[in-house]
Amino acid sequence: MRKWAKTLLGTLLTSWVLVALFPGTLTAQPSSPKANVILLIGDGMDDVQISIARNYLRGARGRLTLDTLPVRSTVQVLTVDEKNPSRSVYVADSANSATAMATGHVTSRGRIATGAGSDEDLETVAERAAKHGYKTGLVTTSSITDATPASFAAHIKLRICADPAHMVDVEYKGIPLGSCPEDLIAQGGLGSISEQLARSKIDVLLGGGKKHFEVPTESGEETVSELAEQNGFAVVSNLAELRTTPLDQRVLGLFAESTLPVRTLGEAGRSGEKPDPSLLNSLHWYLGSVELPEPMVCVPNPEYGKTPTLQAMTEAALQRLNVNNDRGFFLMIESASIDKQAHARNACGSIGELEQLDETLQSVLAFAQKNPNTLVLVTADHGHAAQIVPYNSLFEQFGAPVFSPGHLVRLTTPEGSGLAINYATNDFLMEEHTGAQVPLMANEAGQGQVPAMLTQPEIHAIIEEHLNLSAAP
Amino acid sequence: MRKWAKTLLGTLLTSWVLVALFPGTLTAQPSSPKANVILLIGDGMDDVQISIARNYLRGARGRLTLDTLPVRSTVQVLTVDEKNPSRSVYVADSANSATAMATGHVTSRGRIATGAGSDEDLETVAERAAKHGYKTGLVTTSSITDATPASFAAHIKLRICADPAHMVDVEYKGIPLGSCPEDLIAQGGLGSISEQLARSKIDVLLGGGKKHFEVPTESGEETVSELAEQNGFAVVSNLAELRTTPLDQRVLGLFAESTLPVRTLGEAGRSGEKPDPSLLNSLHWYLGSVELPEPMVCVPNPEYGKTPTLQAMTEAALQRLNVNNDRGFFLMIESASIDKQAHARNACGSIGELEQLDETLQSVLAFAQKNPNTLVLVTADHGHAAQIVPYNSLFEQFGAPVFSPGHLVRLTTPEGSGLAINYATNDFLMEEHTGAQVPLMANEAGQGQVPAMLTQPEIHAIIEEHLNLSAAP
Repeated sequence: MRKWAKTLLGTLLTSWVLVALFPGTLTAQPSSPKANVILLIGDGMDDVQISIARNYLRGARGRLTLDTLPVRSTVQVLTVDEKNPSRSVYVADSANSATAMATGHVTSRGRIATGAGSDEDLETVAERAAKHGYKTGLVTTSSITDATPASFAAHIKLRICADPAHMVDVEYKGIPLGSCPEDLIAQGGLGSISEQLARSKIDVLLGGGKKHFEVPTESGEETVSELAEQNGFAVVSNLAELRTTPLDQRVLGLFAESTLPVRTLGEAGRSGEKPDPSLLNSLHWYLGSVELPEPMVCVPNPEYGKTPTLQAMTEAALQRLNVNNDRGFFLMIESASIDKQAHARNACGSIGELEQLDETLQSVLAFAQKNPNTLVLVTADHGHAAQIVPYNSLFEQFGAPVFSPGHLVRLTTPEGSGLAINYATNDFLMEEHTGAQVPLMANEAGQGQVPAMLTQPEIHAIIEEHLNLSAAP
Repeated sequence: MRKWAKTLLGTLLTSWVLVALFPGTLTAQPSSPKANVILLIGDGMDDVQISIARNYLRGARGRLTLDTLPVRSTVQVLTVDEKNPSRSVYVADSANSATAMATGHVTSRGRIATGAGSDEDLETVAERAAKHGYKTGLVTTSSITDATPASFAAHIKLRICADPAHMVDVEYKGIPLGSCPEDLIAQGGLGSISEQLARSKIDVLLGGGKKHFEVPTESGEETVSELAEQNGFAVVSNLAELRTTPLDQRVLGLFAESTLPVRTLGEAGRSGEKPDPSLLNSLHWYLGSVELPEPMVCVPNPEYGKTPTLQAMTEAALQRLNVNNDRGFFLMIESASIDKQAHARNACGSIGELEQLDETLQSVLAFAQKNPNTLVLVTADHGHAAQIVPYNSLFEQFGAPVFSPGHLVRLTTPEGSGLAINYATNDFLMEEHTGAQVPLMANEAGQGQVPAMLTQPEIHAIIEEHLNLSAAP
């Protein structure tokens, strides 16, 4: 065989063996000068939330955009006890689960990129990416100080220490929730979450939480917002301002006082309601009858107004992060209120916010199509309370009124069926999270990088690998 | 280039393109003379049940055998309304979901391989495989007449019509549940489920349900068990008898009167219990205290006795189906009581039965290692009621007693942590199923055959494709 033919044949054989052994090997090019990672987190977006949204938005046989991703995996959500970090805790919160993805470390509930027990500051993938010359961005529908975005750019004992006015004896309606005294700058700490974000090297911060930036810094010399400006951020409060800010300037967009309004609500603001058994039924379960919540549909939230969509914020972030950038970027995008609305037993709220994530994913996938070597990951941080229960009980032929002991939302879906959603983890003001493994989906760039099952810290490892961050910067 | 080098190069290029476009193409050989499909169904084994079992059996960071499977997908569970089959129903039962996998058709709850509204008999993949010369087997821990196995080998309007004595006016504790008059042989139907199984061409039927075979057939000329013997089955009632039955004889193994006993129970037979609020708390949610169920561990069921394990039944089935068989086989294996124990709020019961499925999978994977072209699929038929809720509420710092309105099991896991499992879909004797998408895992043979998401009827299509059943037999 001629030498060139041998060489060609050798190359082809090698390629073939590589592809056979490690599908995806040829698409990941560690030596490539440019790589992007876009991590979408649906807060509380477990498979139940996805099924609810699919049923309502697309029908039982329909597909969401996230359903079309070619790579699917499942994620073990890991949490440990603050007092005994060798002990497993089986239900996470957004702080410890975002910390796991951001830092690769398992920690305790409430902690933002700090170690359980140790309080050690844990470097985040956004910080590390910035050191390696990547641009970085965080986009969310919550306050930008909320647990998920904060865990990528701040280090503090408790998520509740959101601004300099909430560092000691933080209260909610008079109930003491905790303190972060050791994180005070005066005590040698890094300060509150908003102050840390204002000092951070993140290029694009978009979300809500204006109120956490309009308070004085711990030193009292300026507001946190002014501190951000001193640190090079353009601080904007609507999309028009954002669009007129030079594309290569770092930006802090604060589009609401706290969490952004949600897109959809139940009719007349209704959310989960308790079934109302008749007097006879309250005497014996087999007797009497029960009044279930009236079926309803989801309607636009009249307070949504000019709130930027997650998709609009994301498109702005992608444009800014990609401009004059030969190195690439890391972008975390969170649809936060899937969780918040599930806490509030508002199925329509969660559905609309999952729809926001799904639309955003369309823009992200379109970007990835045009920008090779962009790894897109879509996941949830923890499970949530909602369950789809039978609209007509499996036991209706028994003749007894069978109903949830919790709160129920009954929706009439656009395909004309009854969808019953149960919230029954507690009877408190807010439902609990749940402890199930959560989904992880990825685009083609994830093939060969994302195994069929992984732990939440391993998401961090995949991002580091795609951006080649393991070496010293 | 020389002609032989050109040809080789051409072949390699074609292979490369094929592998790149259709990973797995080269492993699936439609012309292969032998192919096996082993479908394991965990009844009600959604990701929550898997997470509960993993936490208890292996620890939060541990892995079950099913976690190690290289292919992962998610399945849309589809159900339609009996009266209006164009209308979606969002929560399935085992009858319609097993029918979807067995026949590729979406039907209504309660139906066994028959069409919603139409009552049309739908050919099952086991029947079709038998026509194509494959051996077939059904193994379960439930009665062999129960909805899941029945849907692979019988055709009837309602799952409750399990034997000739339960065809008309079927009752449960005096409560009328339904009738299958049109399925009576006297009416031109196929008869009850047990009678249909006794007449079936399935090679290996192993499970419980002896009581459904010890009654007279509809004609009254013999018992259903005798009918099975006339049809070529050896009828056995323990593993010793099974092992002395010639390997190439068709066999009906009935190892319990009804469902097989489960492996593990809660201490002192305890299952989900209602939290008990103090009088003060029952006056106002912020006052008083609550007594939660005492933590416990899972213990062996004293009534398990010599019940064959699912693994032992499966190993016997694999040996029998594989002997003197150049064509291959289809085997469905069900761990049925993950579901039944979740209905009964017995977390320990579900854990032990998921462990049974997981051990069985070890034997199945060992078989697949030795027998190429064996596709192993592991899935669930529908979601279930259980949720992992925080052992200590997310809101405990609020000072109010926060607790489930349903039933709770609190387990102390072998890794020393508290695992709280909530059952709160109703307050009836049995919990409801839930409507989430369910997991599907596969071995290496599934690579390229199992997409990242599919509908339950598409599982049927994958089995048909692997066994090349689409052509006429």
